[in-house]
Amino acid sequence: MRKEKLEELKGYIEQLKTIKLKEIEQKQFINSQGYDCYLNNGSIIRRERLIKGTNDGSAVIIMPITKDDEILTVIEPRVFTKETVGVGFPAGYIEQDEEPKLAALRELREETGYVPSEINEIDAFYQDEGCSSAYNHIFIAYNCQKKYLQQLDKDELVKYMLFNYEELEELERLGYIKGANTKLTLAKAKNYIRR
Amino acid sequence: MRKEKLEELKGYIEQLKTIKLKEIEQKQFINSQGYDCYLNNGSIIRRERLIKGTNDGSAVIIMPITKDDEILTVIEPRVFTKETVGVGFPAGYIEQDEEPKLAALRELREETGYVPSEINEIDAFYQDEGCSSAYNHIFIAYNCQKKYLQQLDKDELVKYMLFNYEELEELERLGYIKGANTKLTLAKAKNYIRR
Repeated sequence: MRKEKLEELKGYIEQLKTIKLKEIEQKQFINSQGYDCYLNNGSIIRRERLIKGTNDGSAVIIMPITKDDEILTVIEPRVFTKETVGVGFPAGYIEQDEEPKLAALRELREETGYVPSEINEIDAFYQDEGCSSAYNHIFIAYNCQKKYLQQLDKDELVKYMLFNYEELEELERLGYIKGANTKLTLAKAKNYIRR
Repeated sequence: MRKEKLEELKGYIEQLKTIKLKEIEQKQFINSQGYDCYLNNGSIIRRERLIKGTNDGSAVIIMPITKDDEILTVIEPRVFTKETVGVGFPAGYIEQDEEPKLAALRELREETGYVPSEINEIDAFYQDEGCSSAYNHIFIAYNCQKKYLQQLDKDELVKYMLFNYEELEELERLGYIKGANTKLTLAKAKNYIRR
């Protein structure tokens, strides 16, 4: 691991740490709906479905690789985790009727200002198959170049940095990378890194 | 892939398919709470936290290996997915004040009746780090033997089968295995399979 990289990362993490959570009344994004489910074998089972916003919470995750084989990595508040800050890849919810690949390009550009010359879906998975239909798509984006400014939503705070693949594996071992989406993307993208 | 295995799997999937979902009033498991989050850098951001039951939804996933190097695999209704049935590993929520390893032994026994001679945690991850503190633990269990009857909760329906590791990789490629927890467990356990 390049020493200056780890120092820079620690600086961003320090800035983004949550120091206080205050309960508020507003709840509008997470919802649920109960169902009786009739199975082929005659059983009826009861399940509750997690709903996020107006869609099912399906998302895209992008591993963006630059011309110099560095991987664009984002650092964000993850306020409900023990660390309160997460290290991962650009990602976000797919909008209504949006193609996953276009969602991936949009999220990459909004969160980092980078644009690739090629982007491919390499895997997909259910985020939480017991209670949700959220289906997440993993993309790998090649030859990414910084072309725009970050364009963040209100309440979004994203720092980004470049690491190589081995450094990301080390960050996972060191406990900086702990999210399911990031870990799965890191594992699945290994065979798609071109050198 | 052993042909008779794939046939048996298809039979279970057929039985467990959901043919109808009927909305009901009851909602009691999934909830949420809004927060204003005060960060170290002075920002205040708003986030909503997913709550499952009385805990945070942290779970265990177990890859159980028998003396004959077969891997115990479960087939369950996943009513909100496109397939409506999922193939994966024994798993379940950690109860209040329960040690993850004991939760893993309990879920393995309840869902399959199998008991291991050794069980080790090999990885852990946040299920959905943007909106939840659910932290899931992956276990690998060795020398598993069938010692008890299945002991399922009301509304639980679990079939189980034995596959080898290569067959599970094939089931993933064929699209039978699509859940984040199962895919991550399969990827992370690869180096821990003893032969």
